[in-house]
Amino acid sequence: MIELEIKLMKNILGANDEIAALNRKLFAERGVAVMNLMGSPGSGKTTLLEQTLRRIVGRLRVAVIEGDLFTAKDAERIERAGVDVIQINTAGGCHLDAAMIQRACMSLNLDALDLLIVENVGNLVCPAEFDIGENFKAVVLSITEGDDKPLKYPLIFKESAAVVLNKIDLLEFTNFDLPSARQDLTTLHPTIKIFETSCTRGDGLDDWAAWLIGRTVR
Amino acid sequence: MIELEIKLMKNILGANDEIAALNRKLFAERGVAVMNLMGSPGSGKTTLLEQTLRRIVGRLRVAVIEGDLFTAKDAERIERAGVDVIQINTAGGCHLDAAMIQRACMSLNLDALDLLIVENVGNLVCPAEFDIGENFKAVVLSITEGDDKPLKYPLIFKESAAVVLNKIDLLEFTNFDLPSARQDLTTLHPTIKIFETSCTRGDGLDDWAAWLIGRTVR
Repeated sequence: MIELEIKLMKNILGANDEIAALNRKLFAERGVAVMNLMGSPGSGKTTLLEQTLRRIVGRLRVAVIEGDLFTAKDAERIERAGVDVIQINTAGGCHLDAAMIQRACMSLNLDALDLLIVENVGNLVCPAEFDIGENFKAVVLSITEGDDKPLKYPLIFKESAAVVLNKIDLLEFTNFDLPSARQDLTTLHPTIKIFETSCTRGDGLDDWAAWLIGRTVR
Repeated sequence: MIELEIKLMKNILGANDEIAALNRKLFAERGVAVMNLMGSPGSGKTTLLEQTLRRIVGRLRVAVIEGDLFTAKDAERIERAGVDVIQINTAGGCHLDAAMIQRACMSLNLDALDLLIVENVGNLVCPAEFDIGENFKAVVLSITEGDDKPLKYPLIFKESAAVVLNKIDLLEFTNFDLPSARQDLTTLHPTIKIFETSCTRGDGLDDWAAWLIGRTVR
Protein backbone atom coordinates (compact mmCIF):
# COMPACT_ATOMS: atom_id res chain seq x y z
CA MET A 1 0.00 0.00 0.00
CA ILE A 2 2.69 2.49 0.94
CA GLU A 3 4.90 1.46 -1.94
CA LEU A 4 1.95 1.80 -4.28
CA GLU A 5 1.36 5.29 -3.04
CA ILE A 6 4.99 6.25 -3.54
CA LYS A 7 4.94 4.88 -7.09
CA LEU A 8 1.79 6.81 -7.98
CA MET A 9 3.26 9.91 -6.40
CA LYS A 10 6.32 9.61 -8.65
CA ASN A 11 4.11 9.55 -11.75
CA ILE A 12 2.22 12.61 -10.55
CA LEU A 13 5.48 14.42 -9.84
CA GLY A 14 6.89 13.50 -13.28
CA ALA A 15 3.85 14.93 -15.08
CA ASN A 16 3.98 17.98 -12.86
CA ASP A 17 7.65 18.62 -13.63
CA GLU A 18 6.95 18.70 -17.36
CA ILE A 19 4.32 21.41 -16.97
CA ALA A 20 6.54 23.28 -14.49
CA ALA A 21 9.31 23.39 -17.13
CA LEU A 22 6.85 24.91 -19.62
CA ASN A 23 5.79 27.50 -17.05
CA ARG A 24 9.41 28.38 -16.29
CA LYS A 25 10.19 28.84 -19.99
CA LEU A 26 7.14 31.10 -20.41
CA PHE A 27 8.08 33.23 -17.39
CA ALA A 28 11.67 33.63 -18.69
CA GLU A 29 10.44 34.66 -22.15
CA ARG A 30 8.19 37.32 -20.65
CA GLY A 31 10.78 38.54 -18.16
CA VAL A 32 8.64 37.84 -15.09
CA ALA A 33 10.22 36.72 -11.82
CA VAL A 34 8.02 34.27 -9.92
CA MET A 35 8.17 33.65 -6.19
CA ASN A 36 6.48 30.61 -4.61
CA LEU A 37 5.63 31.74 -1.06
CA MET A 38 5.01 28.89 1.37
CA GLY A 39 4.46 28.29 5.08
CA SER A 40 2.19 26.70 7.70
CA PRO A 41 -1.39 27.79 8.17
CA GLY A 42 -1.23 30.91 10.30
CA SER A 43 2.46 31.65 9.80
CA GLY A 44 1.40 35.06 8.49
CA LYS A 45 1.90 34.68 4.73
CA THR A 46 -1.03 36.88 3.70
CA THR A 47 -0.28 39.63 6.20
CA LEU A 48 3.39 39.59 5.13
CA LEU A 49 2.23 39.83 1.54
CA GLU A 50 0.02 42.85 2.32
CA GLN A 51 2.98 44.58 3.98
CA THR A 52 5.28 43.59 1.11
CA LEU A 53 2.93 44.97 -1.55
CA ARG A 54 2.81 48.33 0.25
CA ARG A 55 6.59 48.52 -0.19
CA ILE A 56 6.92 47.31 -3.78
CA VAL A 57 3.81 48.46 -5.67
CA GLY A 58 4.87 51.50 -7.72
CA ARG A 59 8.43 50.17 -7.97
CA LEU A 60 7.52 46.82 -9.55
CA ARG A 61 4.54 45.71 -11.58
CA VAL A 62 3.16 42.88 -9.44
CA ALA A 63 0.35 40.34 -9.55
CA VAL A 64 -0.57 37.63 -7.05
CA ILE A 65 -1.91 34.10 -7.35
CA GLU A 66 -3.63 32.98 -4.15
CA GLY A 67 -3.94 29.28 -3.40
CA ASP A 68 -6.61 28.26 -0.94
CA LEU A 69 -8.57 25.12 -0.15
CA PHE A 70 -12.06 26.60 -0.44
CA THR A 71 -12.42 30.29 0.42
CA ALA A 72 -11.40 33.54 -1.28
CA LYS A 73 -10.63 35.25 2.05
CA ASP A 74 -6.95 35.82 1.31
CA ALA A 75 -7.53 36.93 -2.29
CA GLU A 76 -10.00 39.55 -1.08
CA ARG A 77 -7.38 40.92 1.32
CA ILE A 78 -4.73 41.11 -1.41
CA GLU A 79 -7.13 42.73 -3.89
CA ARG A 80 -7.50 45.62 -1.45
CA ALA A 81 -3.74 46.22 -1.84
CA GLY A 82 -4.49 47.27 -5.43
CA VAL A 83 -2.91 44.45 -7.44
CA ASP A 84 -4.39 41.86 -9.80
CA VAL A 85 -5.18 38.64 -7.96
CA ILE A 86 -6.05 35.23 -9.34
CA GLN A 87 -7.71 32.90 -6.84
CA ILE A 88 -7.11 29.16 -7.14
CA ASN A 89 -9.34 26.95 -5.01
CA THR A 90 -7.85 23.50 -4.67
CA ALA A 91 -11.14 22.05 -3.32
CA GLY A 92 -9.31 20.46 -0.42
CA GLY A 93 -6.01 19.79 -2.23
CA CYS A 94 -2.99 20.42 -0.03
CA HIS A 95 -0.73 22.20 -2.52
CA LEU A 96 -0.67 24.09 -5.81
CA ASP A 97 0.67 22.25 -8.84
CA ALA A 98 2.15 23.42 -12.12
CA ALA A 99 -1.06 22.83 -14.11
CA MET A 100 -3.04 25.07 -11.76
CA ILE A 101 -0.47 27.86 -12.26
CA GLN A 102 -0.47 27.31 -16.02
CA ARG A 103 -4.22 27.78 -16.12
CA ALA A 104 -4.18 30.80 -13.78
CA CYS A 105 -1.56 32.51 -15.99
CA MET A 106 -4.02 32.46 -18.90
CA SER A 107 -5.92 35.17 -17.00
CA LEU A 108 -2.83 37.36 -16.49
CA ASN A 109 -0.99 39.68 -18.88
CA LEU A 110 2.55 38.47 -18.14
CA ASP A 111 4.11 41.12 -20.42
CA ALA A 112 2.83 43.77 -18.04
CA LEU A 113 4.47 42.20 -14.97
CA ASP A 114 7.89 42.26 -13.28
CA LEU A 115 6.98 39.96 -10.40
CA LEU A 116 4.37 37.29 -9.85
CA ILE A 117 3.91 36.14 -6.27
CA VAL A 118 2.22 32.79 -5.70
CA GLU A 119 0.92 32.31 -2.16
CA ASN A 120 0.70 28.54 -1.77
CA VAL A 121 -1.76 26.58 0.40
CA GLY A 122 -0.90 26.76 4.11
CA ASN A 123 1.20 23.63 4.59
CA LEU A 124 4.82 23.01 5.55
CA VAL A 125 5.05 19.67 3.70
CA CYS A 126 3.41 19.13 0.31
CA PRO A 127 3.93 22.50 -1.43
CA ALA A 128 7.71 21.97 -1.23
CA GLU A 129 7.38 18.78 -3.31
CA PHE A 130 5.62 20.38 -6.28
CA ASP A 131 7.61 22.56 -8.67
CA ILE A 132 5.26 25.16 -10.15
CA GLY A 133 7.88 26.69 -12.45
CA GLU A 134 8.83 29.45 -10.03
CA ASN A 135 12.24 31.19 -10.06
CA PHE A 136 12.64 30.88 -6.33
CA LYS A 137 10.79 29.75 -3.25
CA ALA A 138 10.48 31.47 0.12
CA VAL A 139 9.09 30.08 3.37
CA VAL A 140 7.47 31.93 6.25
CA LEU A 141 8.00 30.41 9.71
CA SER A 142 6.36 32.17 12.63
CA ILE A 143 8.19 32.33 15.95
CA THR A 144 5.16 30.79 17.65
CA GLU A 145 5.54 27.58 15.63
CA GLY A 146 8.70 26.65 17.51
CA ASP A 147 12.42 26.50 16.74
CA ASP A 148 12.37 22.74 15.99
CA LYS A 149 10.56 23.17 12.67
CA PRO A 150 13.58 23.47 10.29
CA LEU A 151 14.93 20.05 11.33
CA LYS A 152 11.45 18.49 11.42
CA TYR A 153 10.39 19.77 7.99
CA PRO A 154 13.78 20.04 6.23
CA LEU A 155 12.72 19.90 2.57
CA ILE A 156 10.89 23.23 2.50
CA PHE A 157 13.85 25.00 4.11
CA LYS A 158 16.34 23.32 1.76
CA GLU A 159 14.28 24.37 -1.26
CA SER A 160 13.75 28.00 -0.23
CA ALA A 161 16.06 30.87 -1.16
CA ALA A 162 14.83 32.78 1.88
CA VAL A 163 13.12 32.13 5.19
CA VAL A 164 11.08 34.81 6.92
CA LEU A 165 11.05 34.35 10.70
CA ASN A 166 7.78 36.14 11.28
CA LYS A 167 5.96 37.41 14.41
CA ILE A 168 9.35 38.27 15.91
CA ASP A 169 7.44 40.64 18.26
CA LEU A 170 6.17 37.53 20.09
CA LEU A 171 9.71 36.17 20.69
CA GLU A 172 9.76 37.17 24.37
CA PHE A 173 6.53 35.26 25.08
CA THR A 174 7.82 31.97 23.63
CA ASN A 175 10.74 29.62 24.21
CA PHE A 176 11.90 30.01 20.59
CA ASP A 177 15.73 29.87 20.53
CA LEU A 178 16.70 32.25 17.73
CA PRO A 179 20.45 31.43 17.55
CA SER A 180 19.66 27.71 17.50
CA ALA A 181 17.06 28.12 14.73
CA ARG A 182 19.48 30.22 12.68
CA GLN A 183 22.16 27.57 13.07
CA ASP A 184 19.80 24.75 12.04
CA LEU A 185 18.70 26.74 8.99
CA THR A 186 22.25 27.42 7.80
CA THR A 187 23.24 23.81 8.48
CA LEU A 188 20.37 22.63 6.27
CA HIS A 189 20.93 25.29 3.64
CA PRO A 190 24.15 27.31 3.96
CA THR A 191 23.15 30.09 1.53
CA ILE A 192 19.59 30.63 2.78
CA LYS A 193 18.76 34.28 3.41
CA ILE A 194 17.15 34.79 6.84
CA PHE A 195 14.82 37.70 7.63
CA GLU A 196 13.31 38.50 11.02
CA THR A 197 10.02 40.32 10.60
CA SER A 198 7.06 41.65 12.53
CA CYS A 199 4.07 42.74 10.49
CA THR A 200 2.55 44.47 13.52
CA ARG A 201 5.71 46.45 14.52
CA GLY A 202 7.30 46.68 11.06
CA ASP A 203 10.67 45.02 11.86
CA GLY A 204 12.60 43.69 8.89
CA LEU A 205 9.97 44.41 6.24
CA ASP A 206 12.02 46.99 4.31
CA ASP A 207 14.98 44.58 4.11
CA TRP A 208 12.73 41.78 2.90
CA ALA A 209 11.09 44.02 0.27
CA ALA A 210 14.51 45.25 -0.93
CA TRP A 211 15.74 41.66 -1.27
CA LEU A 212 12.62 40.77 -3.25
CA ILE A 213 13.11 43.73 -5.61
CA GLY A 214 16.72 42.60 -6.10
CA ARG A 215 15.53 39.14 -7.16
CA THR A 216 13.38 40.41 -10.05
CA VAL A 217 14.69 40.37 -13.59
CA ARG A 218 14.03 43.36 -15.84
CA MET B 1 -3.31 16.21 -14.86
CA ILE B 2 -5.47 17.35 -11.98
CA GLU B 3 -8.24 14.90 -12.79
CA LEU B 4 -5.68 12.11 -12.97
CA GLU B 5 -4.40 13.01 -9.55
CA ILE B 6 -7.89 12.98 -8.07
CA LYS B 7 -8.58 9.54 -9.57
CA LEU B 8 -5.36 8.11 -8.16
CA MET B 9 -6.10 9.71 -4.81
CA LYS B 10 -9.48 7.94 -4.75
CA ASN B 11 -7.78 4.57 -5.24
CA ILE B 12 -5.31 5.31 -2.48
CA LEU B 13 -8.11 6.36 -0.15
CA GLY B 14 -10.13 3.22 -0.97
CA ALA B 15 -7.22 0.91 -0.10
CA ASN B 16 -6.56 2.95 3.02
CA ASP B 17 -10.18 2.68 4.17
CA GLU B 18 -10.02 -1.12 4.01
CA ILE B 19 -7.01 -1.26 6.32
CA ALA B 20 -8.54 1.39 8.58
CA ALA B 21 -11.62 -0.81 9.00
CA LEU B 22 -9.38 -3.72 10.05
CA ASN B 23 -7.59 -1.49 12.54
CA ARG B 24 -10.89 -0.26 13.98
CA LYS B 25 -12.14 -3.83 14.41
CA LEU B 26 -8.90 -4.82 16.16
CA PHE B 27 -9.05 -1.84 18.53
CA ALA B 28 -12.70 -2.62 19.42
CA GLU B 29 -11.88 -6.29 20.13
CA ARG B 30 -9.05 -5.29 22.47
CA GLY B 31 -11.04 -2.51 24.16
CA VAL B 32 -8.60 0.25 23.25
CA ALA B 33 -9.82 3.77 22.50
CA VAL B 34 -7.72 5.47 19.81
CA MET B 35 -7.39 9.23 19.36
CA ASN B 36 -5.95 10.72 16.16
CA LEU B 37 -4.43 14.06 17.27
CA MET B 38 -3.86 16.52 14.45
CA GLY B 39 -2.87 20.15 13.91
CA SER B 40 -0.48 22.49 12.10
CA PRO B 41 3.26 22.38 12.65
CA GLY B 42 3.88 24.33 15.83
CA SER B 43 0.30 24.33 17.09
CA GLY B 44 1.61 22.69 20.26
CA LYS B 45 0.50 19.06 19.83
CA THR B 46 3.53 17.50 21.52
CA THR B 47 3.57 19.94 24.44
CA LEU B 48 -0.17 19.39 24.92
CA LEU B 49 0.46 15.67 24.86
CA GLU B 50 3.17 15.95 27.52
CA GLN B 51 0.75 17.91 29.74
CA THR B 52 -2.06 15.46 29.00
CA LEU B 53 0.04 12.42 29.92
CA ARG B 54 0.91 13.99 33.29
CA ARG B 55 -2.83 14.07 34.02
CA ILE B 56 -3.86 10.64 32.75
CA VAL B 57 -0.94 8.28 33.35
CA GLY B 58 -1.85 6.22 36.44
CA ARG B 59 -5.58 6.57 35.63
CA LEU B 60 -5.39 5.06 32.15
CA ARG B 61 -2.93 2.68 30.52
CA VAL B 62 -1.66 4.76 27.60
CA ALA B 63 0.71 4.40 24.67
CA VAL B 64 1.59 6.90 21.96
CA ILE B 65 2.35 6.62 18.26
CA GLU B 66 4.35 9.60 17.00
CA GLY B 67 4.23 10.50 13.32
CA ASP B 68 7.04 12.63 11.99
CA LEU B 69 8.63 13.32 8.63
CA PHE B 70 12.21 12.44 9.56
CA THR B 71 13.23 13.04 13.18
CA ALA B 72 12.45 11.30 16.48
CA LYS B 73 12.45 14.61 18.41
CA ASP B 74 8.82 14.37 19.49
CA ALA B 75 9.01 10.66 20.37
CA GLU B 76 11.99 11.35 22.63
CA ARG B 77 9.99 14.03 24.46
CA ILE B 78 7.01 11.70 24.96
CA GLU B 79 9.21 8.81 26.11
CA ARG B 80 10.35 11.00 29.01
CA ALA B 81 6.70 11.11 30.14
CA GLY B 82 7.06 7.40 30.93
CA VAL B 83 4.81 5.78 28.33
CA ASP B 84 5.52 3.41 25.45
CA VAL B 85 6.12 5.29 22.23
CA ILE B 86 6.26 4.00 18.67
CA GLN B 87 7.93 6.36 16.22
CA ILE B 88 6.76 6.36 12.60
CA ASN B 89 8.93 8.29 10.16
CA THR B 90 7.04 9.03 6.98
CA ALA B 91 10.25 9.98 5.10
CA GLY B 92 8.65 13.20 3.90
CA GLY B 93 5.06 11.92 3.68
CA CYS B 94 2.55 14.48 4.83
CA HIS B 95 0.21 12.25 6.85
CA LEU B 96 -0.06 8.89 8.61
CA ASP B 97 -2.10 6.20 6.88
CA ALA B 98 -3.87 3.09 8.14
CA ALA B 99 -1.11 0.70 7.01
CA MET B 100 1.51 2.61 9.02
CA ILE B 101 -0.69 2.33 12.12
CA GLN B 102 -1.34 -1.36 11.46
CA ARG B 103 2.41 -2.02 11.35
CA ALA B 104 3.13 0.13 14.43
CA CYS B 105 0.49 -1.78 16.43
CA MET B 106 2.44 -5.01 15.90
CA SER B 107 4.97 -3.57 18.37
CA LEU B 108 2.34 -2.74 21.00
CA ASN B 109 0.51 -4.98 23.48
CA LEU B 110 -3.00 -3.67 22.84
CA ASP B 111 -4.48 -5.84 25.60
CA ALA B 112 -2.50 -3.83 28.13
CA LEU B 113 -3.88 -0.48 26.93
CA ASP B 114 -6.95 1.68 27.56
CA LEU B 115 -5.97 4.52 25.28
CA LEU B 116 -3.71 4.85 22.26
CA ILE B 117 -2.89 8.39 21.19
CA VAL B 118 -1.64 8.91 17.64
CA GLU B 119 0.10 12.26 17.09
CA ASN B 120 -0.17 12.82 13.35
CA VAL B 121 2.28 14.73 11.12
CA GLY B 122 2.02 18.51 11.56
CA ASN B 123 -0.40 19.45 8.79
CA LEU B 124 -3.89 20.96 8.77
CA VAL B 125 -4.88 19.37 5.45
CA CYS B 126 -3.86 15.80 4.54
CA PRO B 127 -4.15 13.96 7.89
CA ALA B 128 -7.89 14.73 7.94
CA GLU B 129 -8.35 12.81 4.68
CA PHE B 130 -6.84 9.53 5.87
CA ASP B 131 -8.83 7.35 8.25
CA ILE B 132 -6.36 5.39 10.39
CA GLY B 133 -9.05 3.40 12.22
CA GLU B 134 -9.23 5.78 15.18
CA ASN B 135 -12.31 6.13 17.39
CA PHE B 136 -12.19 9.89 17.30
CA LYS B 137 -10.08 12.74 16.00
CA ALA B 138 -9.04 15.92 17.79
CA VAL B 139 -7.39 19.01 16.31
CA VAL B 140 -5.11 21.52 18.01
CA LEU B 141 -5.33 25.10 16.71
CA SER B 142 -3.04 27.66 18.30
CA ILE B 143 -4.31 31.19 18.85
CA THR B 144 -1.31 32.54 16.94
CA GLU B 145 -2.44 30.76 13.75
CA GLY B 146 -5.39 33.14 13.38
CA ASP B 147 -9.16 32.91 13.74
CA ASP B 148 -9.75 32.40 10.01
CA LYS B 149 -8.43 28.82 10.04
CA PRO B 150 -11.69 26.89 10.70
CA LEU B 151 -13.35 28.30 7.57
CA LYS B 152 -10.16 27.99 5.50
CA TYR B 153 -9.45 24.37 6.50
CA PRO B 154 -12.97 23.10 7.21
CA LEU B 155 -12.52 19.34 6.78
CA ILE B 156 -10.25 18.82 9.78
CA PHE B 157 -12.66 20.73 12.05
CA LYS B 158 -15.69 18.87 10.66
CA GLU B 159 -13.98 15.53 11.29
CA SER B 160 -12.77 16.25 14.83
CA ALA B 161 -14.77 15.48 17.97
CA ALA B 162 -12.85 18.21 19.80
CA VAL B 163 -10.77 21.27 19.01
CA VAL B 164 -8.14 22.53 21.42
CA LEU B 165 -7.60 26.29 21.09
CA ASN B 166 -4.06 26.29 22.40
CA LYS B 167 -1.62 29.06 23.49
CA ILE B 168 -4.60 30.98 24.88
CA ASP B 169 -2.03 32.88 27.02
CA LEU B 170 -0.96 34.70 23.83
CA LEU B 171 -4.53 35.87 23.05
CA GLU B 172 -3.90 39.47 24.16
CA PHE B 173 -0.90 39.79 21.83
CA THR B 174 -2.84 38.74 18.72
CA ASN B 175 -5.95 39.87 16.84
CA PHE B 176 -7.58 36.44 17.28
CA ASP B 177 -11.35 36.94 17.71
CA LEU B 178 -12.38 34.17 20.10
CA PRO B 179 -16.19 34.59 19.85
CA SER B 180 -15.94 34.64 16.06
CA ALA B 181 -13.76 31.50 15.98
CA ARG B 182 -16.15 29.70 18.34
CA GLN B 183 -19.08 30.63 16.12
CA ASP B 184 -17.32 29.43 12.95
CA LEU B 185 -16.43 26.15 14.66
CA THR B 186 -19.97 25.43 15.81
CA THR B 187 -21.36 26.45 12.41
CA LEU B 188 -19.04 23.92 10.75
CA HIS B 189 -19.60 21.25 13.36
CA PRO B 190 -22.43 21.91 15.86
CA THR B 191 -21.41 19.20 18.34
CA ILE B 192 -17.67 19.91 18.40
CA LYS B 193 -16.25 20.20 21.90
CA ILE B 194 -14.08 23.33 22.29
CA PHE B 195 -11.26 23.60 24.84
CA GLU B 196 -9.17 26.69 25.54
CA THR B 197 -5.75 25.70 26.83
CA SER B 198 -2.37 27.12 27.76
CA CYS B 199 0.41 24.62 28.32
CA THR B 200 2.59 27.31 29.92
CA ARG B 201 -0.06 28.64 32.36
CA GLY B 202 -2.11 25.44 32.71
CA ASP B 203 -5.52 26.77 31.60
CA GLY B 204 -8.05 24.18 30.48
CA LEU B 205 -5.76 21.15 30.70
CA ASP B 206 -7.69 19.40 33.47
CA ASP B 207 -10.95 19.76 31.54
CA TRP B 208 -9.32 18.41 28.40
CA ALA B 209 -7.80 15.43 30.27
CA ALA B 210 -11.15 14.68 31.96
CA TRP B 211 -12.92 14.71 28.58
CA LEU B 212 -10.30 12.37 27.16
CA ILE B 213 -10.70 9.95 30.06
CA GLY B 214 -14.47 10.04 29.47
CA ARG B 215 -13.96 9.01 25.84
CA THR B 216 -12.13 5.80 26.65
CA VAL B 217 -13.97 2.50 26.70
CA ARG B 218 -13.26 0.01 29.49
